Amino acid sequence: MPDVLISEVGPRDGLQSIDRTMPTAHKQAWIQSLADSGLTEIEVCSFVPPKLLPQMADAAEVVAFSRSIPGLSVTALVPNLKGAQSAFAAGVHKVTIPFSASEAHSLANVRKSHDQMRQEVAAIMALRNDQFSHVIVETSLSTAFGCSIAGPVSEDLVVQLSEQLVALGVDEIGLADTTGYANPAQVSRLFKRVLTQVGERCMSAHMHNTRGLGLANVLAAYEVGIRVFDSSMGGIGGCPFAPGASGNVVTEDLVFMFEAMGIRTGVDLERLMLARDVFSKGLPDEPTYGMVPAAGLPKGFHSAQGTKGIA
Amino acid sequence: MPDVLISEVGPRDGLQSIDRTMPTAHKQAWIQSLADSGLTEIEVCSFVPPKLLPQMADAAEVVAFSRSIPGLSVTALVPNLKGAQSAFAAGVHKVTIPFSASEAHSLANVRKSHDQMRQEVAAIMALRNDQFSHVIVETSLSTAFGCSIAGPVSEDLVVQLSEQLVALGVDEIGLADTTGYANPAQVSRLFKRVLTQVGERCMSAHMHNTRGLGLANVLAAYEVGIRVFDSSMGGIGGCPFAPGASGNVVTEDLVFMFEAMGIRTGVDLERLMLARDVFSKGLPDEPTYGMVPAAGLPKGFHSAQGTKGIA
Repeated sequence: MPDVLISEVGPRDGLQSIDRTMPTAHKQAWIQSLADSGLTEIEVCSFVPPKLLPQMADAAEVVAFSRSIPGLSVTALVPNLKGAQSAFAAGVHKVTIPFSASEAHSLANVRKSHDQMRQEVAAIMALRNDQFSHVIVETSLSTAFGCSIAGPVSEDLVVQLSEQLVALGVDEIGLADTTGYANPAQVSRLFKRVLTQVGERCMSAHMHNTRGLGLANVLAAYEVGIRVFDSSMGGIGGCPFAPGASGNVVTEDLVFMFEAMGIRTGVDLERLMLARDVFSKGLPDEPTYGMVPAAGLPKGFHSAQGTKGIA
Repeated sequence: MPDVLISEVGPRDGLQSIDRTMPTAHKQAWIQSLADSGLTEIEVCSFVPPKLLPQMADAAEVVAFSRSIPGLSVTALVPNLKGAQSAFAAGVHKVTIPFSASEAHSLANVRKSHDQMRQEVAAIMALRNDQFSHVIVETSLSTAFGCSIAGPVSEDLVVQLSEQLVALGVDEIGLADTTGYANPAQVSRLFKRVLTQVGERCMSAHMHNTRGLGLANVLAAYEVGIRVFDSSMGGIGGCPFAPGASGNVVTEDLVFMFEAMGIRTGVDLERLMLARDVFSKGLPDEPTYGMVPAAGLPKGFHSAQGTKGIA
């Protein structure tokens, strides 16, 4: 058993940030290669109107294929009840609902207030409980560490929203640094507060590397007990700002950090490098990022053999 | 008083990695602008044969200028006794002697065994004690976290070398991740061991960002009590591997991380950004790195107001 779960978001978060659409067969080959590297949870698509995101128009077909991969937890992003209906019908194992902790961000992005978002979550939970009880529902509190519209986001508010979402019955809460504003002290403090209030339902960290602190923030979350980390192969997606910069934490670098620390991810780094080639065949000339892919593994490096972690 | 000391190494580590030579007047303007941002320790040059590193031929002149900046601790790298003699004569406040923990690296780089290096350090200490008692001597244990020639480096050996160097009378010990091999668990473990053996003489961490773990490694060192961190404005120097990649930890990103955490560096980030322009005037078109310079500061960001740090 791995010590941490790396939840790969590239096929959703990455591909929907790129204007071109990766052909379905290439998506399938890429998802297969990611799973072959040992990744056991992949967010394979989002269920959104094809007019808004044509890159995700084949979502149901991608889910059907992904379900055929043994042992893979197939997840999808759903912004609302309609998306959840489609995702449930397609047969996903898990959905993630983004919920902006910053109400200004929520209104700007999905034109919904916090009240409206809570109603949406309640409706999704009712449908899940009624007809799709085997599907896991995660809510990801985006802009939890700061908002590019509103600036600082109240930590009290993030804690309250977490409690409300748990009261609505969601299975898992994640905190997302959508804007790349988080710092390790804040990550440590806020996760501790949410963990204290909602316990083990607070499960995952979605960190961005926008200001270079992605892995330091992951480390801070790990140190307070978080064991599920979102990241993106090649760092695609997540709003990159500059050449060589990545938005999302790069899966390759994240896996390297944990494995080097003796913390098992279950992911084979060499096979993960092969998945980069499969991605590039599907979207030729699309830039990918990552420091470990560029620098190579240290001489004499070996993957984690068992639980050690930071002392 | 700041909570941590950022020791800027760009004018030495950075400039000696670049083939072109920055003109002396531009070096002086750049060092002045770095000091103006609040940096109170700058490694301004190395004392090495001009035939080997013509970029450092004006070392004595650069030291003389730097000494004129009020409150600045002027440091230089010296690989041997001859370099130390020149540095002491030029009036530095501190010298740093690189000492490869990997003997294979030491033999390849400076053609000296560990025994020969210890003799060199002893000779430098004798000169210091005899004639320059006000100058601080630091030894930086390079390749302390792994070697690109020998692979893994024994932690026992690093601890033993630290003890031997303290016995030789050096004032400060630093551990340097020359190769970018370190991970946070190793950083935490090794610094704790050295701190246990030699106490507060183990003072500084010189981390590289070669594999993206630079700031996570800094965080790990901070958490076990290290308070002095080397870094390079714009990430210049320290063996970059890829476009957009940096070798040295980027001072701008490092300062941002600490200040965002509420840990005072004494460095004004906006003034530090101005120093980038001064650098670029001295070496036009030379690439500089940094995620915070590319992404900008978060909306509503303010610098640390007092000691808080990670909980």
